[in-house]
Amino acid sequence: MSTPSFPTSLGTSEGTTITLLGQDLATDLMGQVSFGELAYWLITLERPTPQQARLFEAVLLGLADHGFTPTAIAARLTYLSAPDSIQGALAAGLLGGGSRFLGVTEDTGRFLADVLAGLDRTPTDDAGWDEVAEAAVRAQREAGRFVPGLGHPVHKDGDPRTPRLIQIAHEEDLYGAHLALFEAIGRTHERVLGKRLPLNGAGVSGAALADLGIRQELLRGTVLLARCAGLLGHIAEEIRRPVANDVYMSVDRNAVYVDPSQES
Amino acid sequence: MSTPSFPTSLGTSEGTTITLLGQDLATDLMGQVSFGELAYWLITLERPTPQQARLFEAVLLGLADHGFTPTAIAARLTYLSAPDSIQGALAAGLLGGGSRFLGVTEDTGRFLADVLAGLDRTPTDDAGWDEVAEAAVRAQREAGRFVPGLGHPVHKDGDPRTPRLIQIAHEEDLYGAHLALFEAIGRTHERVLGKRLPLNGAGVSGAALADLGIRQELLRGTVLLARCAGLLGHIAEEIRRPVANDVYMSVDRNAVYVDPSQES
Amino acid sequence: MSTPSFPTSLGTSEGTTITLLGQDLATDLMGQVSFGELAYWLITLERPTPQQARLFEAVLLGLADHGFTPTAIAARLTYLSAPDSIQGALAAGLLGGGSRFLGVTEDTGRFLADVLAGLDRTPTDDAGWDEVAEAAVRAQREAGRFVPGLGHPVHKDGDPRTPRLIQIAHEEDLYGAHLALFEAIGRTHERVLGKRLPLNGAGVSGAALADLGIRQELLRGTVLLARCAGLLGHIAEEIRRPVANDVYMSVDRNAVYVDPSQES
Amino acid sequence: MSTPSFPTSLGTSEGTTITLLGQDLATDLMGQVSFGELAYWLITLERPTPQQARLFEAVLLGLADHGFTPTAIAARLTYLSAPDSIQGALAAGLLGGGSRFLGVTEDTGRFLADVLAGLDRTPTDDAGWDEVAEAAVRAQREAGRFVPGLGHPVHKDGDPRTPRLIQIAHEEDLYGAHLALFEAIGRTHERVLGKRLPLNGAGVSGAALADLGIRQELLRGTVLLARCAGLLGHIAEEIRRPVANDVYMSVDRNAVYVDPSQES
Repeated sequence: MSTPSFPTSLGTSEGTTITLLGQDLATDLMGQVSFGELAYWLITLERPTPQQARLFEAVLLGLADHGFTPTAIAARLTYLSAPDSIQGALAAGLLGGGSRFLGVTEDTGRFLADVLAGLDRTPTDDAGWDEVAEAAVRAQREAGRFVPGLGHPVHKDGDPRTPRLIQIAHEEDLYGAHLALFEAIGRTHERVLGKRLPLNGAGVSGAALADLGIRQELLRGTVLLARCAGLLGHIAEEIRRPVANDVYMSVDRNAVYVDPSQES
Repeated sequence: MSTPSFPTSLGTSEGTTITLLGQDLATDLMGQVSFGELAYWLITLERPTPQQARLFEAVLLGLADHGFTPTAIAARLTYLSAPDSIQGALAAGLLGGGSRFLGVTEDTGRFLADVLAGLDRTPTDDAGWDEVAEAAVRAQREAGRFVPGLGHPVHKDGDPRTPRLIQIAHEEDLYGAHLALFEAIGRTHERVLGKRLPLNGAGVSGAALADLGIRQELLRGTVLLARCAGLLGHIAEEIRRPVANDVYMSVDRNAVYVDPSQES
Repeated sequence: MSTPSFPTSLGTSEGTTITLLGQDLATDLMGQVSFGELAYWLITLERPTPQQARLFEAVLLGLADHGFTPTAIAARLTYLSAPDSIQGALAAGLLGGGSRFLGVTEDTGRFLADVLAGLDRTPTDDAGWDEVAEAAVRAQREAGRFVPGLGHPVHKDGDPRTPRLIQIAHEEDLYGAHLALFEAIGRTHERVLGKRLPLNGAGVSGAALADLGIRQELLRGTVLLARCAGLLGHIAEEIRRPVANDVYMSVDRNAVYVDPSQES
Repeated sequence: MSTPSFPTSLGTSEGTTITLLGQDLATDLMGQVSFGELAYWLITLERPTPQQARLFEAVLLGLADHGFTPTAIAARLTYLSAPDSIQGALAAGLLGGGSRFLGVTEDTGRFLADVLAGLDRTPTDDAGWDEVAEAAVRAQREAGRFVPGLGHPVHKDGDPRTPRLIQIAHEEDLYGAHLALFEAIGRTHERVLGKRLPLNGAGVSGAALADLGIRQELLRGTVLLARCAGLLGHIAEEIRRPVANDVYMSVDRNAVYVDPSQES
């Protein structure tokens, strides 16, 4: 059998040169390109313009930390049990990045893209977008499904990240179809659902990333990269001011044994 | 028992405000602070100066991707097997961030810090640093231990990331004791070890991060954050141009069964 | 706010007694109950009969190891990179237990359960089961979906685990509706699909676990428990006779750099 | 470059045969060998005698579940966040299997082995073992180190798993040097440390596994296999009676924001 070959367009290493994304890592990238720009470039294989970089980094900032989320607690509990292995604590935190909490960005991006894919023509004004949005919300409701990106347990009257990302998108001339549809959902959902919900930060991030050209399968990965920084912050804090053992103790001390025969 | 409280200095969320690191996330941070700056801030609880940010982001860039490392291969194999769960693929890649390959940055940072901690006075010139460095290398050799940060299987004549980070450190006036000692090791090790080895990029990163004030327990975590971006790039590439199944097949097809009774 | 309580029916610890599943761990379980029996009991909260235990343990054996699977390779690569952290290597291996390869057991269990749930009456003979099975296979084909549990890249003429598990199920009087439907699919699919495919071991395992009363959400978890033993065997072998570095080298040396501008 | 080969002694698959550990999986193993026996065999490449199997399975039972440990809580929090990916929840739980809580078995096994390796002659009676044990405890204390295997936060007057495993070891004629030394530590430590501590279950498990021939690097892995079953039990319980969201809420609601400027 012939020797397989494994192509890659990310980077190579030889002698005294390291090439990354077609550039000389040391002379062209280090000290000139930010980590957020590099991340965008690694994901899309395209160098971001300064405008794209600004919006992308703003999205990452909005997603990096959310306090004592299940993922942050899991990371801190794992660091408590295995302080010799910080990679385990980070990994454990990221593993909570699934459908239930972190999935909103991906779900919103996919939902908006699906609606857009079904359009014959792209609307040209708010009224046109409102029509599309209202129909989409109605279809979700009839199918018994939630509209991703709507609602937030804390920021019921508005998630501050949403207007900020929309503002940056406009400033950088990157306001596209996904964001337009998302805002239209914000304007029209109340008449369908009967209540006013905020457009949440995870959802607007999905719209912004989609308008930035990030493909659907990588929306969640982008959130995870942002969250990696937040988790590192939590682990740093756990080292400086540990709370994980208190979390553990508060659960263990309040554990109540229920005889298995009482299980329904 | 009283209700426990769980202090955190990272962030809070209320109503229409999200606070992160004492700042209003939407108005003070998003669109104004880069992701790399935020990461530094989350880790140290101190806002980086533009100089610190430049050096920190350069370190992250140098560590983000190294081609088909065991971690990148593991991430791609996991994505192949579980494409529905990108968080698993990222986590699997990060879990390889242990002592053997990714540990150099942490080992170097700790080694340099240990040597510095044992000094009565900080040297003031190259000759002073050379004396300290040569003694440290000699001590390692006598103890049968390697000097972390020295050597590279590919860049035998010099790792291009090293002079670049040192240059940036000088440009930003952040060249400190760890970097000074590290360079001195570069100048003096040959007379002790009998061969000339390059100062590698992972090692100079440890020195730079230490001079940036990143504590020892978080050096590896910083490398992992950088690597998270690289792994996302690999997963993105796996989606565009998959190779993991070829890796799997090349191992499976070349598997040779050895009867257990032949095991020594 | 009141103190929360956290109920559990698994176990408690006090003074000189440890209770697990309502039993005294030391005097009633250790030395009397096998690990496989305990696993069944922990999953279902019901003590298995000797018959259930025999079938359940046979399922675990059939799923424990499959050679150099992507998961085994990932575990070995992670152990290579982080030998100080065996928990990372095991975790990395398990993280590949997703939809693509390890999902067959769960997919088959769910598929069979869905078909059974749609029946007005349970068939009473082979002819009755054949009718149900043929209709189910036809429906899958019309919907453009594969029938889970059918087919195997290696065991094209028959997976030896399938007749063995069916035989044990008969021996232990545990042959139930899921297994009956699964065998009927084996008898009837050829006339619908136009080709003869084997009933694979992962699929019959799903049928057997379902007939053992393991709920759908835990089918994949059961496979992962089995695989945990196999992965430990691979890590043990990696310590005795390492191959992971050869895997890494064979990929790295055959890496081919493709300029990003050539990406489609 | 020549094609690499990847030797393995675990298993092969061809046509209608699957070989595992030199046996025909379907006809020789399934339905005849327990999962615990297979695990021992996979780890050591030796088929356990019925005596070895009984002791090994008893060790696994003693280690499988410990209630709401940090690892069980982390697994449940991860399942809450990512119910679509049970492999992530299991992995997150296992990742806490590091030095702090789960490390006792490995630490004890290594400690006992180190002491035994330094002996000129193996003691032949309790008095001989007591002398060795007392010296070892004294050496640990002088070095400022704890004696692994001694002490337990709950079972201060005796961990019930310890006498039970020792009893089974005697019953199966597997009581060896590690267990003898461990019991001698139990008899003699008080005169050195000034307080009476129990020989804990994790520690006696390390001694028993060492006497069973499990090598040091795999002691922790064995504990993780046992814990895998316990974690599956926790995830099963989380599905039946969820508590993870209450854990999350109890932390989040009791989070207290501390201004970063107040950090020491």
